[in-house]
Amino acid sequence: MSRIDFNEICRDKKSRARRCCLSTRRGKIETPVFMPVGTAATVKGMDPEEVAAMGFDIILGNTYHLMLRPGPEIVAAHGGLHEFMSWPGSILTDSGGYQVFSLAALRKIGDDKVIFRSHLDGTEYELSPERAIAIQEQLGSDIMMALDECPPHDALPGYQREVCERTSLWARRCLDARTNDGGALFGIVQGGLDLSLRREHLDQIAAMPFDGLALGGLSVGEGPERMNQVVSALGEIMDEKRPRYLMGVGLPQDIIRAVQQGIDMFDCVVPTRNARNGQLFTWDGPIQIRHAAHTADLRPLDPDCGCPACRRFSRAYLRHLYMANEVLGVRLNTLHNLFFYAELMRTIRQAIEAGDYAAWAAGALDRLEGNIKER
Amino acid sequence: MSRIDFNEICRDKKSRARRCCLSTRRGKIETPVFMPVGTAATVKGMDPEEVAAMGFDIILGNTYHLMLRPGPEIVAAHGGLHEFMSWPGSILTDSGGYQVFSLAALRKIGDDKVIFRSHLDGTEYELSPERAIAIQEQLGSDIMMALDECPPHDALPGYQREVCERTSLWARRCLDARTNDGGALFGIVQGGLDLSLRREHLDQIAAMPFDGLALGGLSVGEGPERMNQVVSALGEIMDEKRPRYLMGVGLPQDIIRAVQQGIDMFDCVVPTRNARNGQLFTWDGPIQIRHAAHTADLRPLDPDCGCPACRRFSRAYLRHLYMANEVLGVRLNTLHNLFFYAELMRTIRQAIEAGDYAAWAAGALDRLEGNIKER
Repeated sequence: MSRIDFNEICRDKKSRARRCCLSTRRGKIETPVFMPVGTAATVKGMDPEEVAAMGFDIILGNTYHLMLRPGPEIVAAHGGLHEFMSWPGSILTDSGGYQVFSLAALRKIGDDKVIFRSHLDGTEYELSPERAIAIQEQLGSDIMMALDECPPHDALPGYQREVCERTSLWARRCLDARTNDGGALFGIVQGGLDLSLRREHLDQIAAMPFDGLALGGLSVGEGPERMNQVVSALGEIMDEKRPRYLMGVGLPQDIIRAVQQGIDMFDCVVPTRNARNGQLFTWDGPIQIRHAAHTADLRPLDPDCGCPACRRFSRAYLRHLYMANEVLGVRLNTLHNLFFYAELMRTIRQAIEAGDYAAWAAGALDRLEGNIKER
Repeated sequence: MSRIDFNEICRDKKSRARRCCLSTRRGKIETPVFMPVGTAATVKGMDPEEVAAMGFDIILGNTYHLMLRPGPEIVAAHGGLHEFMSWPGSILTDSGGYQVFSLAALRKIGDDKVIFRSHLDGTEYELSPERAIAIQEQLGSDIMMALDECPPHDALPGYQREVCERTSLWARRCLDARTNDGGALFGIVQGGLDLSLRREHLDQIAAMPFDGLALGGLSVGEGPERMNQVVSALGEIMDEKRPRYLMGVGLPQDIIRAVQQGIDMFDCVVPTRNARNGQLFTWDGPIQIRHAAHTADLRPLDPDCGCPACRRFSRAYLRHLYMANEVLGVRLNTLHNLFFYAELMRTIRQAIEAGDYAAWAAGALDRLEGNIKER
C-alpha cells in the first residue's frame, strides 16, 4: 500500500532524535534530511547537477508556482518535473495550499474548493483536493502532500478548529483521489499553537493511511519558542513508523532543535533566499557579506568550509559581487549556504549515529547562537 | 622588448585570414580569438572554471569598472585580477577610455587628462595615460591597452582629427609610463570612418613600439558595411608582425568578415548580454527564447550543440526560466552563447588551416544571415 519504505537505523540515547532511511520510487534518502526548495522548477541560482553533487537526494517543488507557470500540462509533456528540470533525485511537492493562502489574491474558500487569483497576472484558478493531487501526479511527484488550509498563527481559536475540520475532510479526499500511478502521500496536521487542538488533529490525520505525517502552519511568525513547544508536544506522540516532516523549517538552530524532538524531514527557502540577500551561514553564526568590514578582507568566508566560494574566493571578492549585483555572487552565496546545510545534516546524522546527539546539539546551538550578532 | 610572442602558423589561400599563436606571460592563445568580457571581475553569470572549460584562454577586464568598484588597490592586494576573480588564463584590459566617454558623466577633457564622474555615485575621478597604465599594472593585466579617446561615429571631421592627435600623444605617454613589471601594451587606431585619416593614424600608432595594434571607435553605431570598409582598408596595410585587434566586435557575422580582412583578436559583450535578453545564437541565426512558439517545445534549443543547455534541457524549460526571471536561465543562456562563440572561433581556425576560409565564410554567412529573421 505504501509507496515509500521507511526504516529506522538507530536512535539517540538521550533524545528522540533518530536516523532513518527513506526510499522513494526514485532512490534512497538518509534522514534527518533537508530538502532545498525548487520553487519554479529550479533551486534558485543552481544547476541541478550542483545540488546533487552537494549530496542532496531530494528537493521540494511548489505546486502553486508550477500550476501558474509553466502549467502542469507542459511539465507532464516532458515526462514530469524530474525530466523538465533535469533533476536526478526524488521530488516532494507541496499541495499548493500554503501559497494560495499566503501569496495569491484569495477570492473564495469553501469546503469544496478554493478559488483564487494568480499573483502573477490575476488569472482565476481553482484548487481542490482532487485538483491538487491531479497536478502533483502530472508533475510526477515522488512524495505528494495533501491539500490543507494554512491559517495565520494568530487566527482565532474557532477558526483554527474550522481549519482542522476542513483539512481533515480534504485529507480524506486527497487519499481517495490518488491513482495507482501517484507517488507517496503525506497528511498535514494543523491546529495552530493550541496543543490540545494539535493533538486532536494529529489523531485524525494519523488515523488515515498516509505514508508520512507533516506538521503545517508553523514557522509562520509565531517565533522559535512557541514553534518548539508544538514540535515537542507532537514529536512525543507522532507515529514512529512513518516519516515526520516539519514544513517550511528553517534556520540551522530550528532544525537542530526539531531533530531532537524526532523530526525527520525539513524544507525551507532560508539557505537560498538568504544567500541572495548576502546572509551566509557559518557554524559561528551568519555573516552579512555586504558589510563594509569585508571590503578589503582577503580571507575566505569560512576557512573550514570546503565549498567553491570558500575555496577559491575572498570575502572581498564575494562582497564586490554582491555590491555589483552580479549573478556569480548569487551562485557562490547559494552554493555556500546549501553546502552548509548539507554539511549540517551530515553532522546531525553522524551525531545521532554516535549516540550523543543531545550533547552535540547543545554545543552546536551555543556556537550558532552565541555568535548570532552579525559579524 | 615585446612582452608577448606572436607567430603566424598559416594563412588562407584566398583571403587575408591567418592562424597565429599569441603567447602572453600567462599562456598560449590560438588566434583568431574571441575574448569574453569580464566587466566587473566576472564574465556575467559564469564561474571562471566554466569559461576556461569552454576553451577560452583569455578574457577582457574593464579598467573603468574596476577603477570605480572595487578599486584597483583591492584587486592589487589579492595579487591582481587573475587571483581576485580566480581566472586561470590571460587577461587583456582596456584602458578605461571607452567607458569614460560612453558611460561616465564627463566633466572635462584636456590633453593632459580626463576628469569625469562615476556613473555609479557621481564621485569625481581622473584618468590620464599614466594613470590608465598604473591601474592596468595594478590589475596585473597581461595585455594592456593605451588610453585613447573614443568619439561618436558621427563626430565632425575636425574633431576626429583632434581625437587622433590626442590619442597619439597619449599613446606615447602610455609607452613611457609602463614599468618593467607591466604586461604587453597595444596601441589604438582612431579616425572614424575617414579612410585617409584612419591610414594616417595607423601610420603614427604603428610607428611606436606597441606589442599589438587595435582598431578602436568601430561598432559604435556606424553599421556593419561602413565598419567593414574601414577594417578592409586597414587590414590590408596593418603590420603583419603584430597581432591585430578589432575592439568591441561583435556579432558572429562581423567576426567572420573581419577575420577575412586579417583581424586576429575580438571582444564583445554580445554573447553574454544577449543571453541575458534571451537571444540565443545558432548557425542558422538567433533564437528569441521568450517567443510563445517555444512554450511547449520539447526539443533542445539546438540539437547539434553540445552545451549543457542544449544537452540537458528543452526549449520549453529555457523559455520557462526566462519568463520566470530565474538565475539558472541567465546561466544556461550565457553558457550556450559562449559555447557557440568558442565553437565559432574553433571552426574559423580550422577553416583557415584547411586553406579554404573564404569559401567557408561565404557559406557560414549565408546560413547565419539567410535565417536572420528571428525564429
